[in-house]
Amino acid sequence: MAVRVVGFDGDDTLWHSETRFSVTQGEFCQLLKRHVPGADVDARLSETEMKNLSIYGYGIKSFTLSMLETAIELTEARIPASDLQVILGWGKRMLMEPTELLDHVEQTLKQIAGRYDLLLITKGDIFDQESKLARSGLGDLFLGVEVVSEKSVDSYQAIFRRRGIAPEEFVMVGNSLRSDVVPVVGLGGCAVHIPYSVTWHHERVPDEELPSGGWRRIAAIDELPAVLEAL
Amino acid sequence: MAVRVVGFDGDDTLWHSETRFSVTQGEFCQLLKRHVPGADVDARLSETEMKNLSIYGYGIKSFTLSMLETAIELTEARIPASDLQVILGWGKRMLMEPTELLDHVEQTLKQIAGRYDLLLITKGDIFDQESKLARSGLGDLFLGVEVVSEKSVDSYQAIFRRRGIAPEEFVMVGNSLRSDVVPVVGLGGCAVHIPYSVTWHHERVPDEELPSGGWRRIAAIDELPAVLEAL
Repeated sequence: MAVRVVGFDGDDTLWHSETRFSVTQGEFCQLLKRHVPGADVDARLSETEMKNLSIYGYGIKSFTLSMLETAIELTEARIPASDLQVILGWGKRMLMEPTELLDHVEQTLKQIAGRYDLLLITKGDIFDQESKLARSGLGDLFLGVEVVSEKSVDSYQAIFRRRGIAPEEFVMVGNSLRSDVVPVVGLGGCAVHIPYSVTWHHERVPDEELPSGGWRRIAAIDELPAVLEAL
Repeated sequence: MAVRVVGFDGDDTLWHSETRFSVTQGEFCQLLKRHVPGADVDARLSETEMKNLSIYGYGIKSFTLSMLETAIELTEARIPASDLQVILGWGKRMLMEPTELLDHVEQTLKQIAGRYDLLLITKGDIFDQESKLARSGLGDLFLGVEVVSEKSVDSYQAIFRRRGIAPEEFVMVGNSLRSDVVPVVGLGGCAVHIPYSVTWHHERVPDEELPSGGWRRIAAIDELPAVLEAL
């Protein structure tokens, strides 16, 4: 069956995201080192984020709340409120930053938008993701936006059912093996993996758990049109 | 045309929400009064929430971040981090509380679920709303869940298009005139308003802006089956 619908991840597939978290996390480490010079701030923040994932979910607001919690705990509540105010400001800055597209995204999407139905399928915060899409200027190229709480087999299946998509006519494009490749291939769809320079450890998949077929890796999105043609 | 699809708001229509915000806000005022006895804490928090709405959107995480910001600003950063830690804890408590259904919700939904397609249409945070629905035990009664960033004419229209719903066969049930009644009636659908004891001021609509027909008010959800029959 020919490809009819192409799903795109947003963060780190269409626009930069993880590098922004990394930049803020770097500033956070600097700030905390002034109070607790010997602490492994990255590790503690990471633990807090994982512990809070089932309560907060993904996204910048969750990240901000986890930074605040980590800062208070690591300093045993000795950190002044003015420093916590700085952290709150970083969260807002991240939420308001202009959407910075990855190379070749705009021309590639414009090239394929007439040939396939394009869906944006992201996790995270619906408010934040819709805002990012609006600021990206790409909104009109997409038939729809699906923000899910987790990119699981169940959530892809729900999208397929709701939109009348057969898995064989669907290709998912994204930077995460765990979220964009494994569940889609598991359902009988295809996936194209475009690695990003920074990958959140939570998104990594051990090689032995990767599907043996049904997906391929490209270095950049401008290779996508030819790959879709060949499927 | 007969009613085919019934949309339900979640917060304060199916389960308690605003009272929980009110309870936490009461605790917040108590806490802040210790530091700034003369301040109008409610008014300042409300201002901060409105100012942040376009950045944070709706939901408990946004509310928590606005409480922290208000606490730091009102005390000119004199508040100790241990008090901010308490506020962080309130946010988590709200996110983890069991979903407390309003009276008659369960039997009413079970009564009508076989006759109409039920959709949950809420705004807020997708992670939080899906979690609330899961904890409510009502998930199986709903054909689908739509979490939108704003309940506007555009967002209802997108749902109608995506799900193939004609406005004339749709009824929206909710506690907010602004979000559940006005946009749906504007599109040619029907609405049933069930007031909740506490309404966030942001959701109020001046009487003169209310549609003259296409909606009605009931006192409690157990009146709904008869109203749907009569439409």
